[in-house]
Amino acid sequence: MRQAVLAATVEILSAEGLAGTTVAAVARSAGVHETSVYRRWKTRENLILDALTAEVDTALPIPDTGRVDEDLVRYFRSLARLLGTAQGRALLRLSVEYEDNARTSGNAESDDGMLDDRRGLYWSERLRRAAVMVRRGVGRGELAADTDPGLLIEAVSGPLFVRALLSGAPLDEPLVRGLVALALDGARSAPRR
Amino acid sequence: MRQAVLAATVEILSAEGLAGTTVAAVARSAGVHETSVYRRWKTRENLILDALTAEVDTALPIPDTGRVDEDLVRYFRSLARLLGTAQGRALLRLSVEYEDNARTSGNAESDDGMLDDRRGLYWSERLRRAAVMVRRGVGRGELAADTDPGLLIEAVSGPLFVRALLSGAPLDEPLVRGLVALALDGARSAPRR
Repeated sequence: MRQAVLAATVEILSAEGLAGTTVAAVARSAGVHETSVYRRWKTRENLILDALTAEVDTALPIPDTGRVDEDLVRYFRSLARLLGTAQGRALLRLSVEYEDNARTSGNAESDDGMLDDRRGLYWSERLRRAAVMVRRGVGRGELAADTDPGLLIEAVSGPLFVRALLSGAPLDEPLVRGLVALALDGARSAPRR
Repeated sequence: MRQAVLAATVEILSAEGLAGTTVAAVARSAGVHETSVYRRWKTRENLILDALTAEVDTALPIPDTGRVDEDLVRYFRSLARLLGTAQGRALLRLSVEYEDNARTSGNAESDDGMLDDRRGLYWSERLRRAAVMVRRGVGRGELAADTDPGLLIEAVSGPLFVRALLSGAPLDEPLVRGLVALALDGARSAPRR
């Protein structure tokens, strides 16, 4: 049942957008009772988040080519592509709206507390998965031993998120390569070590 | 009149948030007629954006210490501080909502087209101002001649925006210093040139 409901959710989301993705529509399309959906996911938002998470983790495999620069370019190329799709943007919007509500209401412990917590940490968790590419690079001696994996991932992913959310500037290959090169080599004119 | 209205807008925004910042409330507080406000700013959103822009440009001076690392740390420390305030977050939220509406409606030419365009480009314009720090660094020979000023500014500012909008992670001094150091020196273990 879970797979059918999640697939129906993604399909409706792509066709109808966030507003059109109701539990009723999903249940009808998946051939299950609305009450079964509510029993499992509690809220429409949890359902949508669960569906998009499954999609995103499929869309963002963690490469392991043996070279940190190549791994990073491949991974962030996938992220850039995802953020350019309707589904990627839907997920981003959902995350921003959630953060907003959580702060405005000051209500950290809502009725579905555990699921809400997971939702707030959604992108942090996706990025934590990506840090393994950096740790491998450190292990192979490609990167300095004191490299902060999380910070490096943030420095490359941050501009991609901002372009998707705020500026609308293109999310293309030169951008991805430029950001990875900057995070690996820096902008200084002289070598530092 | 302009100064009085903008000051009243910022004051109400800080006290009441976005929802409470109506043209009626602003006009009352500034001692002007509502119709005068509408004549000049056309919409509530334009008024709020104009007020926040004036505030932000004051909050984000462009330093000129003669060293690119010091300039960048000072500038992004100001940005991090701003994004931690209610006003900074209000502006970010407004930008995201606007981008969202613009894309959903596919309506690039609305009734107040020129002002809308300006709004969509709001953060791009703020960041373009900051690029002069990088160009000065290139001019002094501190940075490589082929440095892309806009990309470097995006790589440092992106994570700050993302933390403010999505993860809620702290916007502190170690983060700012770490991001500037990464953008200047990179993460590689060996010198590149």
